[in-house]
Amino acid sequence: MRNPLLAPDLREIVADRDEACLREFFRDHHPADAAELLDDLEADEVFFVLQLMSGRERAAIFDYLDEPLQEGVAERMDDHDLAALVTYMSHDERAGLMTRLPQERSDRIYPLLARAEREDIRRLQSYAEGTTGAVMTSDYATVPADETAAAAIERLRHEAPDRETIYYCYVVDDNRRLKGFVSLKNLILAPPYRRVSEVMKTDFVRAYVDDDAESTAKKLAEYDLLAIPVCDRDDHLVGIVTHDDVIDLIVEEATEDVHRLGGVGPLEHAYLETPFVTLWLNRAVWLSVLFVAGFLTTWALKNFEDDFERIPALVLFIPLIISAGGNCGSQSATLITRALALGELTPKDWLRVLGHEILMGTSLGLALGFVGFLRALLTSSDGTAGASWSMFALTIGLAVSVVVVCGNLVGAMMPLILKRLGFDPALMSNPAVSSLVDVTGIVTYFAIAQAILL
Amino acid sequence: MRNPLLAPDLREIVADRDEACLREFFRDHHPADAAELLDDLEADEVFFVLQLMSGRERAAIFDYLDEPLQEGVAERMDDHDLAALVTYMSHDERAGLMTRLPQERSDRIYPLLARAEREDIRRLQSYAEGTTGAVMTSDYATVPADETAAAAIERLRHEAPDRETIYYCYVVDDNRRLKGFVSLKNLILAPPYRRVSEVMKTDFVRAYVDDDAESTAKKLAEYDLLAIPVCDRDDHLVGIVTHDDVIDLIVEEATEDVHRLGGVGPLEHAYLETPFVTLWLNRAVWLSVLFVAGFLTTWALKNFEDDFERIPALVLFIPLIISAGGNCGSQSATLITRALALGELTPKDWLRVLGHEILMGTSLGLALGFVGFLRALLTSSDGTAGASWSMFALTIGLAVSVVVVCGNLVGAMMPLILKRLGFDPALMSNPAVSSLVDVTGIVTYFAIAQAILL
Repeated sequence: MRNPLLAPDLREIVADRDEACLREFFRDHHPADAAELLDDLEADEVFFVLQLMSGRERAAIFDYLDEPLQEGVAERMDDHDLAALVTYMSHDERAGLMTRLPQERSDRIYPLLARAEREDIRRLQSYAEGTTGAVMTSDYATVPADETAAAAIERLRHEAPDRETIYYCYVVDDNRRLKGFVSLKNLILAPPYRRVSEVMKTDFVRAYVDDDAESTAKKLAEYDLLAIPVCDRDDHLVGIVTHDDVIDLIVEEATEDVHRLGGVGPLEHAYLETPFVTLWLNRAVWLSVLFVAGFLTTWALKNFEDDFERIPALVLFIPLIISAGGNCGSQSATLITRALALGELTPKDWLRVLGHEILMGTSLGLALGFVGFLRALLTSSDGTAGASWSMFALTIGLAVSVVVVCGNLVGAMMPLILKRLGFDPALMSNPAVSSLVDVTGIVTYFAIAQAILL
Repeated sequence: MRNPLLAPDLREIVADRDEACLREFFRDHHPADAAELLDDLEADEVFFVLQLMSGRERAAIFDYLDEPLQEGVAERMDDHDLAALVTYMSHDERAGLMTRLPQERSDRIYPLLARAEREDIRRLQSYAEGTTGAVMTSDYATVPADETAAAAIERLRHEAPDRETIYYCYVVDDNRRLKGFVSLKNLILAPPYRRVSEVMKTDFVRAYVDDDAESTAKKLAEYDLLAIPVCDRDDHLVGIVTHDDVIDLIVEEATEDVHRLGGVGPLEHAYLETPFVTLWLNRAVWLSVLFVAGFLTTWALKNFEDDFERIPALVLFIPLIISAGGNCGSQSATLITRALALGELTPKDWLRVLGHEILMGTSLGLALGFVGFLRALLTSSDGTAGASWSMFALTIGLAVSVVVVCGNLVGAMMPLILKRLGFDPALMSNPAVSSLVDVTGIVTYFAIAQAILL
């Protein structure tokens, strides 16, 4: 989506301090486009450009800037400008920004904000990461139950510029308890004199501040909603989560799952924006865990040292056999983990999954084992210590089959077990499945070889 | 989200043919909830329940049913009922259903539909899978440019029940060329006598029927839109893609990427709903490709048979060394593949990625190599053919470091190369990275061993 060609032009215009041209340049751009162009500039340049705009325009573009750039620009603004910017920003974005500012800076900004804004930011900041409260916005519209549809529309018209959406609005009682929901569509369809209480829905989907943000996102997606109201545990309306935030959440969640499956812990920023040391630590932790677990393969092989000294040909097939098991396990782990993430499966389905995967693993194992048998027949080696070459090939074929069946089951069952124990099933990454299967694969392979060849 | 507890109750009520109770049961449910409850029943039972409802209600619930169930229920309906259902269904869903019906059935249904509906379905069916045309709906609202804001709102009020959304509407000329866009919010904010042409935007985001559906989804997400208009190449408005379809697209796309990375080809249905043979073939193809590629490891080891016959201790560390490289490669492949999918990187960034990953791989490799060196020091084996044990440990440490650096680079560069060549970068699955690294790892390991120990 980036348009890197435009960045140098823009940079030149900024360098020339050509204010008229810059105003012209940004007048017709959607704030998202403007932010995308600005994302390629330095904080100094962006600061200069934003200074030329009105408060509202500036905040609309600022909302869309990358986080590090937001921080760089905020650093260059004086306290009063920053306070004005915070006032105009969208409620969820500004709570995030205030959290990321250095403590002593935010301490100076808070007193400059209106009391309502200050309390709003504090409240949004108070919810734990990953909860619905932490992703909601407090920019929602409410209408009184006893107002007429026409009066309610008139009210929305006045509030429109300050609300995240006016297409959905909510009805609360005197204690701000959520009582009803009415869409602008239903208000428009209703006869003008009809009261809100007569057209509002009282049975509708809601979320709670301490609900997992991901499950709230799924709810919104399932019911095809534009927004979902968020209540505290006493049913007071405290915010809404909108469809655009849900899209962001779903993308983030998918990224986290992909990373976990690949053996990388969740990252907060984009690949190129993550500091080297953060990324190094993240990767090193997982690699080390897997590496130390891999010591088991050395230990396992040590126990069979006599066997492969006697029949060196056995060594030739070690990587082939253990990687066949690992690959099959990666496949089943991926399928089950994704099905769990999508809600297609729950740990209660374990018996069904077990049956399915025993059948699947066996049929895949037989197929691969047969190919392995043929491959071994076509090799020749002197190192079979007198055992016939066809018996050796049979050993390989059988070992491939059994290791594939086991690998497949390990990959399928581990995510279910992790989920049941309350962990993220994606912790059972593909590399972790491979490591686990490597050890069992070696033991299985040599046990079969001992039985047939020795 | 499933509520399996309710299914048996519902099944009993259906078995009792208790029509009053069923009507009561479904009256207050959102169609999405109703469909979720029905998804656990057999097609016969669902058919019976849907027969009790009015045409519109029936279609609203049917839209949300799982595809196999939709087909089962359609099979049980007579032609006239099915034609009525198709007329009421949402435009994108019904085009999908008509495509999935057996040819001779759809041939009987088409003549029963109004000409406009028939043409609409044919048009939506004509777009290739994966394009924006194939996911759009033709249920959009238009307003004339010379109408006043008040008249336009009045028009939307009349059209509301038949349109996917009335919150966004579009202005077309006499040839249906897309000229403008106006949101209901802007219509409401405008003075009632102001003309649509004065309040509409003429510079706004649009997509084209043959655009990749995924890129259209990204566009909608980037601009936080409720819907995006879709034009043919002559700028005639032919449909819209709505925010709820975009969420589905993003989830599907993420599932495809996750599956590919795990070495599974894209699946059309959910894990438990995919026929066994389809899933078997899908998995067997990838496993076989990787298995045959794995023959290279046997061939590579065969070349070093003399070496490990002389120094059997070398064998002990084969799995540990090659899996360290594979794991590191899986990590970098995952990071780069996901960054490409999110648009954070393009193949043009290859030099930057190369520099980053050389540094990253080296620092990870040195750390793991040091741990490997210590581990090897602590082992003891007689099979070193006279070489000193510390030289042996040095061999292991060095081999781990070099293999990790190489594995990391293979994992990072392959997705960029695949993308550059026009393939899906996720084709470089974690198992494929491991297989590739296995071979290079074995060769590297024994080359280092020969240099130091022999």
